[in-house]
Formats: sequence, C-alpha cells, structure tokens
Amino acid sequence: MLEAELIVAAVQMEPLFGQTEENVAKSIEKIEKAAKQGARVVVLPELCNTGYMFQSRSEAFELAEPVPSGATSQLWIETASRLGIYLVAGITERDGSKLFNSAIITGPDGYMGTYRKLHLWGDEALYFHPGDLGIPVFDTPLGRLACHICYDCWFPEVWRLQAMQGAELICVPTNWVPIPGQDPAREAMANIVVMGAAHCNSVFVVAANRTGMEREQPFIGQSLIVSQTGWPVAGPASVSEEETLIACINLAEARRKRNWNDFNQPLRDRRTDIYDEMLGSGLSRHWI
Amino acid sequence: MLEAELIVAAVQMEPLFGQTEENVAKSIEKIEKAAKQGARVVVLPELCNTGYMFQSRSEAFELAEPVPSGATSQLWIETASRLGIYLVAGITERDGSKLFNSAIITGPDGYMGTYRKLHLWGDEALYFHPGDLGIPVFDTPLGRLACHICYDCWFPEVWRLQAMQGAELICVPTNWVPIPGQDPAREAMANIVVMGAAHCNSVFVVAANRTGMEREQPFIGQSLIVSQTGWPVAGPASVSEEETLIACINLAEARRKRNWNDFNQPLRDRRTDIYDEMLGSGLSRHWI
Repeated sequence: MLEAELIVAAVQMEPLFGQTEENVAKSIEKIEKAAKQGARVVVLPELCNTGYMFQSRSEAFELAEPVPSGATSQLWIETASRLGIYLVAGITERDGSKLFNSAIITGPDGYMGTYRKLHLWGDEALYFHPGDLGIPVFDTPLGRLACHICYDCWFPEVWRLQAMQGAELICVPTNWVPIPGQDPAREAMANIVVMGAAHCNSVFVVAANRTGMEREQPFIGQSLIVSQTGWPVAGPASVSEEETLIACINLAEARRKRNWNDFNQPLRDRRTDIYDEMLGSGLSRHWI
Repeated sequence: MLEAELIVAAVQMEPLFGQTEENVAKSIEKIEKAAKQGARVVVLPELCNTGYMFQSRSEAFELAEPVPSGATSQLWIETASRLGIYLVAGITERDGSKLFNSAIITGPDGYMGTYRKLHLWGDEALYFHPGDLGIPVFDTPLGRLACHICYDCWFPEVWRLQAMQGAELICVPTNWVPIPGQDPAREAMANIVVMGAAHCNSVFVVAANRTGMEREQPFIGQSLIVSQTGWPVAGPASVSEEETLIACINLAEARRKRNWNDFNQPLRDRRTDIYDEMLGSGLSRHWI
C-alpha cells in the first residue's frame, strides 16, 4: 500500500471574511471535485472557514469554533468520511477561552487530530494563542502525514522534526502575503522556502494558499505541490485565481530515495555532536 | 564602521587538478582584480588549490598542506595582508595524518582561522576527516563573518547556528555538482537552498562555486551573492565561465532589518520549548 501512487490536491480558494457557512460550503464543493479526480489527500488554506484579517480579539472569538465538535469541523469530518479521503483544513479554533490558528486533520474513519500553528505572524499574536500541541505526525495507510501553517514554513526546525519522525507528506494550509523585496519576475520567496525545505528534508509538500484581498491585505496564491526532490509537480498556481492543483505522487520515494549516494542521507548526516553542543551552550542568546 | 557599505566578491574559477601552484597564482590574480574594484571580502571556491576529484587517499594526502604554515596558505595570507582584505578560500588541508576539506580565513592582519567542512559529500568521506572545529564566527571591523562549505548548505542547522552567533555574512566556498531532477529552465536547486536560508536567517551570503569538468565530474558554476532578503544582489553567474561577482552590500541590514514587523524576528520566534523537547526525546531516531 505504501508504494502505491497517490493523488493529492491543493485547493487554492478565496474565503470571504466572516461568511463561514458560505466558505465551508464552497470548500466542500472543491473537495468533492478533487475527490472525483481521484484525490485521496486534500489540503485547504489557513483559516479558510472565517478569513484572516480579524480586527479585534472579540471578533476572532465570535467566529472561532471548537474542534472537532463545532459545525465547521463536523461538516469537514462528514465530507472526508463520505468521500473516503484525508483532509487537512485551516480553521479558526476556540478551546475554552483560548483561540488557535489551527488545522483539522480528518480521514475516512473520522477526526484524527489537530495541529495548532506554532509560529504566529504579525497581528495573529493579538488574537491567537501560540500552538501547544507540538509537531504531530499522523499515520495513515497511505503514508505518514504532518502539517504546519504559513509562517511555520520559515522555521527549518519544523520541517526537520517532521521528517525525523518519519513524515513523508507535509500538508501546509497557508495565507501567504507579499514579502517586501519580492522580484515579481522570480518565483515567490514562499515557494523558494518550500522547495528548499522539501529538498533538504526529502519530503513531499502540498501547500494550499488563499487568494484575494481582505481588509486591504492582499494574498499571493501560488499554491504548489512539490516532490521530495524539491521540484514542483503541480503549480505554482496563479496569484489571484481560485484553482485546485492535482498531482500523482509516490510517498515511498520520500524515504526510499533519501540516500543520495553511497554515503549521504541528509537526515542521518546531521552533525548532532556539533549542533547539540552549540545549542546547549546558550551563548547564542546574546546575538539573535 | 558597521553601517558602512561593503564591497564583496565571489570568485568563480576552474582549478586544474593537482596543479596547485598554477591554481593559487590564478586565484591571486583574481583576488587582486577584485580588490582593485574595491572588494574588502573575497571568497574562493572549495578545494581551489588542488581540485576536487581525488582517486585515492594517498593522492589527496600528497596534495594536502598544513594550514596556515603551508605554501598555499602563506601565499593567500600574504595576498590578503598586502591588499588589506578578508579572504575565505577552500583548501585541501593536512593536519598530521588527518585530511580536512577546509577553508582558510585570513585578513589584513594575517591568518584568522580555519573552518573544516562538517558534512562530507560522497567520496570525500574516503579521504577527509569530518570537520572538528565547530561553526566559528569571525569578528572583523566590517562585521561578523562565518563560513561553511558546499554540502553544509543542505543543513539548516548550520545557517541557524551561524546567525544565532551574530554572523551577518556567510562565505561559502563550494564545488556544487549537478543534482538529479534539476530542471535546466529553473534556478539551480543549490541557489534555491542558499536563497531560502539567507531569507529565513536574515544573513548575507557570498557563494563561490567552481566551473569545469574534472575526471568526468562536471561542476555547475552559478555562484551568487545574496542579500539578507534572500534575493541575489549579484549573479547567479554562468554555468561554465570563470567570472568574479562583485556586490556592494550593507552588513548591518542583516540584523537591523531582522524585525519583519511589530511582532516577528525569525530567530527570536523559534519555539525552542517545542524543538528541544522533541529533539531530546530521541524518538525520531527510529525514522530517519
């Protein structure tokens, strides 16, 4: 089963702020279409039930829902179960009086778990609690899935810890925004970061971004699906259009092809003797 | 002084195997030309005194030299001192009966130190000893320099530990070779890895690759100089031509512009609470 080919999908879509019912309904239409094309793993953007640009904590609080008992979670859980697929979807989560920028992971047999964004970006820090569920890896008959969200991509530690736990497919719900200094003639820096990380860790990546402008914040689309070599196998998608990327991949290659030659396997070649000594020294705290 | 503009150079050249005297003489011509254009920091490729493709340990042993007492080191030390520049140059080093794939770092006031490649690539493991000098950072009046060599680029831990020690400029002597799966229409994966790492760590990078074919091994050129944004400020150079890239940069920006907004500074945003717990658990060893 592990060696089988697997079709995966990145749903690039534009949620409308605060219109949760409509957003979730649209996402389900897109999930159904992807499943009809054979997708067994589908990734939706970050916070795609509510939109992103909260103006206050109370506004975020009102739109947030418990996971998995809330209405959005239940709809996605039912959809994944009905279609027999794995779904990773960004959701505004409320847990008691805490808010999280989360992803729900749900499969053919129902709810599997939650990832809570570890590294909050910008004003998110005003509304959300930093992720407190670590970096889980989910075992499925298709392979081992992990996920992280948007700014988490900028932390090579996250990719490493996922790969070192055996993850083969990294699902990235994201809301990438323009980066100052981006040369529009070149690949988006977010794509460069993803490609380099996939390559250096020998993992597949499905990154689903949103599009559109929300309360004056533009989003950059350019979702992509990357193989364990670091090269895109689908996308980058356009900057502004809703579209679903579909790719047929073989997750076993993430680990089977990780021996790059007779000597080198990038995760085993890590010089932990050096890193651990330096990281433990505490000296570096003076400089960062 | 730290805020001053600084001209840096990446010397892309083709050493001829085993012709140390000629290679070093050529490198010095190129260093002199770069210095005439105002360069204060010059980076040469990996193993550029001897060439790369050793066929046996004894062959490597014969070509290797002590650092800094050997003839090659002394010539480079004299050159940097005479020109009042900082030079980072790849050298085949012998220390007693150990061989290292090293870089000498030397400045206006003479020899400053040695970096020994931590992560050996392919057959290098047959000839060289893995680096045993850690990841040093060199303080200069121009800013803080660190270096690593070729395959070291593939280890985000190295970039992180340099940046966390306050390094602003990462000098990379390299001998990049073709990577299977490279789409020739796209940026070299080595360049993508460097750009992503510069961006995620907010450091400048001067990467000097070699060109040419040696004992059936092609090298890919495409040296580049990247700003702390991750975008090239010079290069990538051609695949096959000798050329020297020159760029005027401001090293202070590596740290002054590391606050990306009111909340985020990528090195301070690291979730060491999560990483340390997971790295310390040892669980991951089963999977990599």
